[in-house]
Amino acid sequence: MERIRLVFSGSGGQGVITAAIILAEAAVLYEGLNAVQSQSYGAAARGGATRSDVIISDATIDYPKVIQPNLLVCLTQEAYNKFYEIIRPGGLLITDLRYVKTLKKVDAQQREIPIYNQVMEKIGKPIVFNIAMLGTLIGLIELVAPESIMKVLENRIPSDFLDMNRQALELGLALGAEYKS
Amino acid sequence: MERIRLVFSGSGGQGVITAAIILAEAAVLYEGLNAVQSQSYGAAARGGATRSDVIISDATIDYPKVIQPNLLVCLTQEAYNKFYEIIRPGGLLITDLRYVKTLKKVDAQQREIPIYNQVMEKIGKPIVFNIAMLGTLIGLIELVAPESIMKVLENRIPSDFLDMNRQALELGLALGAEYKS
Repeated sequence: MERIRLVFSGSGGQGVITAAIILAEAAVLYEGLNAVQSQSYGAAARGGATRSDVIISDATIDYPKVIQPNLLVCLTQEAYNKFYEIIRPGGLLITDLRYVKTLKKVDAQQREIPIYNQVMEKIGKPIVFNIAMLGTLIGLIELVAPESIMKVLENRIPSDFLDMNRQALELGLALGAEYKS
Repeated sequence: MERIRLVFSGSGGQGVITAAIILAEAAVLYEGLNAVQSQSYGAAARGGATRSDVIISDATIDYPKVIQPNLLVCLTQEAYNKFYEIIRPGGLLITDLRYVKTLKKVDAQQREIPIYNQVMEKIGKPIVFNIAMLGTLIGLIELVAPESIMKVLENRIPSDFLDMNRQALELGLALGAEYKS
C-alpha cells in the first residue's frame, strides 16, 4: 500500500479531529495498517482554522507530521485559504461547496462537494457533517472499508446515535462515488 | 518555559486521547503556548495499550512525537509494563494506584495515586477519570492554569455535565497537591 498522508481542516466545532481519530483507529484496528494522527497548534491556530493530520501506511511511520498531504480536505474558507497550497502535486483537494469558494488552480485534482448541504437536506443534523465527510472520502478513494469505520463508531457512539451516523456515512459514500470521475 | 513532553497511556475507554487534546487546547488557546498532540498506532496498539503524546512549549515545536517524556502517566498495568521504561531520567512517572502495580525502580520520581478510587468514591462516575487525572497532573506540576482546562471543557461539554467535570478536576487538583512533596 502506498503511504497516504491526509490533512483535514476546518473550524473547531466541525469535528475534524474526531474524524481523523476515527479514520486512524479504523485503519489500525480493523485493517491491520499503521497510522499516526496528530494536531499541531500554534499562534496560527488561535486564529481559527483547525488542522488534523493522519498518515496511514502498511509500513512503520517515523515522522508523524504531514508536510504535503496527498489528500487535503478544507471545510471552511479560512482553512482553505490557509492550507490549499500545501497539497502535494497530483494530490486530491476536497472542499465543501457551501463553505468554501476555491480561488486558485492547484496542481491537483479538485472536488467541490456539497457535503454540508446534503447532510442538512437529508439528515438535518450538522453534528454528523464530519462522518459524512469521511464517507465522501472513502467513496472517492479506497482508504479503508466503510465497515471498519462503522466498527469504530459502534465502540464510540451511544447506540441511539448510531443510525444517524450510519446514514451520514452512507450519504457520504454515495456522494464520493458520484464525484469520483 | 521549559519544553514539556508528556505521554498519557491507558486502555481505549479511559479517555487518554481526549485528555491529551483538552490539555493541548488549554495550553494553546488560553495560555499563549504552542502544543502538538499525537497518537501513534501500530501493531502494538492492537494489543490494547493506548498512548497519546503532548508537547507543550513557548517555542516552535518541530518534531511532534515524544521519545522520552518528562511526564508519563500510566492508567493500566498493560500501559505501565509497555511504557515505564521510556520515562526521561529525572522525570515524573504517575500511575493509578488501583490499576497499576509498579514493578521496578526507575530513574525518576514515582507517584502511585488513587485517582480512580477517589473518583469512584466521591463522584461515582468513571467517565470523568481522565479529567481527574488532568487535575492531578496540574496539582502536581504547574502545567496550565485549572481555569484554562475549565474553559476548554465549557466549549466541549454539554452544560449538564460541566459540574461533574469541574468536580473531577478539583478532586484531581487536591490529590495532586497532596502527592506533591
